[in-house]
Amino acid sequence: MFSFKIIKEDKKTRARLGKVTTEHGSFQTPIFIPVATAATLRALDNRDIEELGAEAILANTYHLHLRPGDDLIKRQGKLHKFMNWQKPIITDSGGFQAFSLGFAVEHQVGKIADNYLDINNKRPDKQTDHKKFAHIDDKGVSFRDPIHGHKIKLTPKRSMEIQSNLGSDIIFAFDECTSPLSDKAYTKKALERTHKWAEQSIKYHDKKQALFGIVQGGAYKDLRIKSAKYIRNLNFDGFGIGGSLGKSKEDMHNILDWTIPLLPKDKPRHLLGIGAVEDLFNSVERGIDMFDCVAPTRWARRGHVYITPEAGGTKKNKFRFNIENKIYENDKKPIDPTCRCYACRNHSRAYLRHLFKASELTYFRLSSIHNLNFLLRLMEKIRKAIEDNSFKKLKKEWLGTNK
Amino acid sequence: MFSFKIIKEDKKTRARLGKVTTEHGSFQTPIFIPVATAATLRALDNRDIEELGAEAILANTYHLHLRPGDDLIKRQGKLHKFMNWQKPIITDSGGFQAFSLGFAVEHQVGKIADNYLDINNKRPDKQTDHKKFAHIDDKGVSFRDPIHGHKIKLTPKRSMEIQSNLGSDIIFAFDECTSPLSDKAYTKKALERTHKWAEQSIKYHDKKQALFGIVQGGAYKDLRIKSAKYIRNLNFDGFGIGGSLGKSKEDMHNILDWTIPLLPKDKPRHLLGIGAVEDLFNSVERGIDMFDCVAPTRWARRGHVYITPEAGGTKKNKFRFNIENKIYENDKKPIDPTCRCYACRNHSRAYLRHLFKASELTYFRLSSIHNLNFLLRLMEKIRKAIEDNSFKKLKKEWLGTNK
Repeated sequence: MFSFKIIKEDKKTRARLGKVTTEHGSFQTPIFIPVATAATLRALDNRDIEELGAEAILANTYHLHLRPGDDLIKRQGKLHKFMNWQKPIITDSGGFQAFSLGFAVEHQVGKIADNYLDINNKRPDKQTDHKKFAHIDDKGVSFRDPIHGHKIKLTPKRSMEIQSNLGSDIIFAFDECTSPLSDKAYTKKALERTHKWAEQSIKYHDKKQALFGIVQGGAYKDLRIKSAKYIRNLNFDGFGIGGSLGKSKEDMHNILDWTIPLLPKDKPRHLLGIGAVEDLFNSVERGIDMFDCVAPTRWARRGHVYITPEAGGTKKNKFRFNIENKIYENDKKPIDPTCRCYACRNHSRAYLRHLFKASELTYFRLSSIHNLNFLLRLMEKIRKAIEDNSFKKLKKEWLGTNK
Repeated sequence: MFSFKIIKEDKKTRARLGKVTTEHGSFQTPIFIPVATAATLRALDNRDIEELGAEAILANTYHLHLRPGDDLIKRQGKLHKFMNWQKPIITDSGGFQAFSLGFAVEHQVGKIADNYLDINNKRPDKQTDHKKFAHIDDKGVSFRDPIHGHKIKLTPKRSMEIQSNLGSDIIFAFDECTSPLSDKAYTKKALERTHKWAEQSIKYHDKKQALFGIVQGGAYKDLRIKSAKYIRNLNFDGFGIGGSLGKSKEDMHNILDWTIPLLPKDKPRHLLGIGAVEDLFNSVERGIDMFDCVAPTRWARRGHVYITPEAGGTKKNKFRFNIENKIYENDKKPIDPTCRCYACRNHSRAYLRHLFKASELTYFRLSSIHNLNFLLRLMEKIRKAIEDNSFKKLKKEWLGTNK
């Protein structure tokens, strides 16, 4: 059971208000979907997520396959039952992690290295780690399980089986996510693989799950167009824009401008792994319906808390400040005086800074609540603005520009 | 403003039901007081603590003096305001940490080494650490601040000043807590210091705060009796039984049997740092009114979760099991099927085991909620049993013995 309905289209941009319905309920789009990597939204419980108003979560196939194992989760009644979360769950294909274990480690791409850090609790070693971990060929990706040490091969069929065991509502086709440092020849080769894997994903996937295809092609215009045209003709329920989105904001905008108009209007589009405020505005404007990103909780854990324009947030400071800064040592104000989250209603910057400096677990909780609340409320405002034909105005209020 | 009222006395034992009233409200005794070391109950927020029904918390003077500093907390409106907790707060004197930095490190006493671990994030090094850190003389204890590196001297006067800055409702006299490995000569010397420091604590303490004196004397009968007689004659609002409680349960029971009958009946008695199920029963039975202990949250973080007798808890397994055990890998039951805490109402052992194995922050939260709920509900049962003249019966149901 899966459907997507467009409720309203913005007149001036490609932004649209929509509604996705799954077996576990509906959510409005554009939506920001918090990432519950290992079947938990780090430091929070399910009641927190509900109170924050998150209507769906995204869990990582790669992580759950390794630990506790998708077979165990299946025996426990699949993911919704295992983690006792009854609203929609999306899983990725594991492809991104295959990428991050292989080329990204070799290339030391920042965000990927972060991801590696999350999995392995250490920074990748350029000399040894990429060799040790991943090998990609036309059949799939082989790597050594960093937790248990044995060899694993992920293929499109295997990814579909694992996601079926997890029982998520929306799953993704298995793809290869190239690095921004990959050259065109390699990116083209990876794209051909991704397309072949897309067909295999359709063939092998659990038909009770909605399957999204992924458009790849790096920052190369002809490859992105080729990919969009190829993927749109396959029988997918929605589409992801994945992979390297180039080296600049402009690259990312170009990629969206090349691909989105080629995709069927009546299916949802998910921009994988993106969650910065500026990017949300610019991507919604270009027709993106769904976002997932670890940014709000990861930034929170590192001390960076989000603020609205009313509290001093700007494109330049990326709508956040670092709570560790000594200027907040005696600051009795909440993180953002306009925010109504639990942390802001109850605690001062001075207190949160103290908890952060003391590495207190409660800090991770309070700051994660705040940052998620910030992004979820921002998405509400964006949806409201599309409804009211004021999306461009809202964007200007936040980014200081219409561009 | 401070008062203590005895509501009911058990006919067969020294157990009593009482009520302590402070400026920030009242609590019934016997009470278990969760420890919020650095002005936060690790992994939980204030709403959690209220929902758990904790009526008071204990914060550590030593930790808060070092970070963020009691002067900062005073500027923020003192501790209640700083952490936004409006019910009673108790602070210890910092003496226990002085002990743990000095002799305990040298002697590698388990519990103390744990405390050291919490402060320093590493195990103490027997060869170097005790020399580096603490020196005790008749004036107080000198040590090097492990966070900032400068020298600190804690004296009775200083401890009272710091606790005044914190603004807690109940404070403790500054004392020296000896090791179970200290010989009688040293314990006697330390006791003389503690008595002198008790008088200085009375002289210098903030008269708005209720001050509890501490009975020391190790496991030596004559010293404990001497200490109880000395301390009871000073103008304290309540009494702590502190320090080494010997090497066995029997030692601890003896110490309570020697001292409690010597203390004034109409003042509350706090057994410092004790929280095991068996100890709670045996100490309430001997006339203890207040307990604080990091055990429930510390055990939780290490994977040990509490269970009632109905769920298999016994004196032998210490009313807990280790969630890491492979037998719980596919266990769909909650930690304790009779428990009504958030974790047990919503999650299986299998899920919690997964979170524990993945070191997920949410695990620390859920298990801390469970373990605290367990102890707080147990104390409720104990109070109810005293009221119903069934304390001995309840004890037998739990410990399997009347002794």
